[in-house]
Amino acid sequence: MPIKRLTIIGVGLIGGSLARALKRARACAEIIGCDVTGAEKAVASGITDSFYTEIGAAVKDAEMVVIAVPLGAMAGVFQQLREYLDDHTILTDVGSVKGQVVEEARRFLGPHWPRFVPGHPVAGTEKSGIEASFAELFAGHRVILTPLAETEATAIERVTELWEQAGARVETMEVTRHDEVLAATSHLPHVLAYSLVQTLAKMEPAGAVFRFAAGGFADLTRIASSSPELWHDIVFANREAVLHLIERFHQELGAVTEAIRTHDSHTLMDSFSRAKAVRDAFTAGRQQYPARTVDRERERQNCLCRSR
Amino acid sequence: MPIKRLTIIGVGLIGGSLARALKRARACAEIIGCDVTGAEKAVASGITDSFYTEIGAAVKDAEMVVIAVPLGAMAGVFQQLREYLDDHTILTDVGSVKGQVVEEARRFLGPHWPRFVPGHPVAGTEKSGIEASFAELFAGHRVILTPLAETEATAIERVTELWEQAGARVETMEVTRHDEVLAATSHLPHVLAYSLVQTLAKMEPAGAVFRFAAGGFADLTRIASSSPELWHDIVFANREAVLHLIERFHQELGAVTEAIRTHDSHTLMDSFSRAKAVRDAFTAGRQQYPARTVDRERERQNCLCRSR
Repeated sequence: MPIKRLTIIGVGLIGGSLARALKRARACAEIIGCDVTGAEKAVASGITDSFYTEIGAAVKDAEMVVIAVPLGAMAGVFQQLREYLDDHTILTDVGSVKGQVVEEARRFLGPHWPRFVPGHPVAGTEKSGIEASFAELFAGHRVILTPLAETEATAIERVTELWEQAGARVETMEVTRHDEVLAATSHLPHVLAYSLVQTLAKMEPAGAVFRFAAGGFADLTRIASSSPELWHDIVFANREAVLHLIERFHQELGAVTEAIRTHDSHTLMDSFSRAKAVRDAFTAGRQQYPARTVDRERERQNCLCRSR
Repeated sequence: MPIKRLTIIGVGLIGGSLARALKRARACAEIIGCDVTGAEKAVASGITDSFYTEIGAAVKDAEMVVIAVPLGAMAGVFQQLREYLDDHTILTDVGSVKGQVVEEARRFLGPHWPRFVPGHPVAGTEKSGIEASFAELFAGHRVILTPLAETEATAIERVTELWEQAGARVETMEVTRHDEVLAATSHLPHVLAYSLVQTLAKMEPAGAVFRFAAGGFADLTRIASSSPELWHDIVFANREAVLHLIERFHQELGAVTEAIRTHDSHTLMDSFSRAKAVRDAFTAGRQQYPARTVDRERERQNCLCRSR
């Protein structure tokens, strides 16, 4: 069942891409945007049907509200929302860290808390802002929902449908497990990429080594072009899990370093070989679900079955 | 001036791709392959004109010999070559580490040493073997030559021409500087990628976290699918420089970790922002030289000006 009125608070890369995807899938009768900036751009390019800079006006009569602001702005939005929401509005967010968001939502949403479904689309690029948004961002990607015991079942169902309309594959996970898994697969890699670029940037003469970097380096450090503000927020929001993962990585790198230092050929080969086997299996797993194929198939179905 | 007879010893990803590129550019009258395996495949697919498994037969009357075997096999090839080369044959190699190769060449090549031009094409993929070779591998990429004071000027010129025919941009560098720069831009990143994959692989339940990895992780760890044998050899061949770079990275990651631990928001933002600025500049620099454009232009010229 299409959503009558959807409000997206924060129309950047994620919020903008979600609006584009849902519009293309004709999944909502009306999409309202809300942001402190970007009003003209969003409306002008037809990404949202209307646009407000005031939360109160934006969420009026909304069937569902998606909060897509940076982690550091989440608590403030929850506080403002509380007084404007009606008794049936379903809420969800797109924050990359769920523990902190859940804590803030529980604290500030009051009676609306059972209709809040914590969510995280595991998709993104190193770019930010509405200019970088595109309808296929979530196609074939996972969206992890971390509902609590108190979360209403219908709210979970509706949010699941929303993301499936955007082309994503939805699954649920426990809050703590989510933050641990993402610290490993996303937050740690970002910290490493930033640190690697900084290591090279400090070599003499300044900047010279980058001229000789090839494709492997380019791929490895692409995420170091991501928004520093965003990643600053994520790392602090998931501080304990990130520190734990850095420690584990540290041990791993330490073992490899020791093998190099002591000419321990066997240990180094063993470590590299195991890593390759795991990485190859990961690639094979990804190829089972080619992102674009899933997306196109789903879109075709949506075009046939849905109308505004 | 086209090369009359070129012998490539070691017809894998690099040797095979070089043969394909030179053939397409019609840069050699005859290309001879030499390897312990792959004879049928190479000849059958027309990559080389003929193929030998014995070095003596392969280098007979060769104007130039390219040694494209793994680093660990380099010394053995130099020893065998010495007795078969004639007085004018130019030699070059493609080893990723130059200090060790130069040392071995100086030791084993005897009177042929002044015609040996140490070289390193900064290009590759995570795949290995002749099956993975393709003519465009070097297009727009750098080839670094590290000639010594004793290296004959004409040998340097001829090797430079060879790589330019394959579409590469050639420059020269001092041996030690090469190994330091590559430790930073290539060897350290590989060690980090292998270590990151290993860190995640050891999390419980085994292999589960990879299901939630997105594009950033895929890019960052692509090089962990590279040949363990190859990278084992490279890391040990460039041991001192790699250990030095790991130490520098360690300091950088340590500073970031400390900032996270102590809630030092300013330091973390500063570090991430600087890294992003440097990475963005790197991307902008790469876009100035789009690899394929350079390649096609060069090939067109080659097709017009050269004939076998």
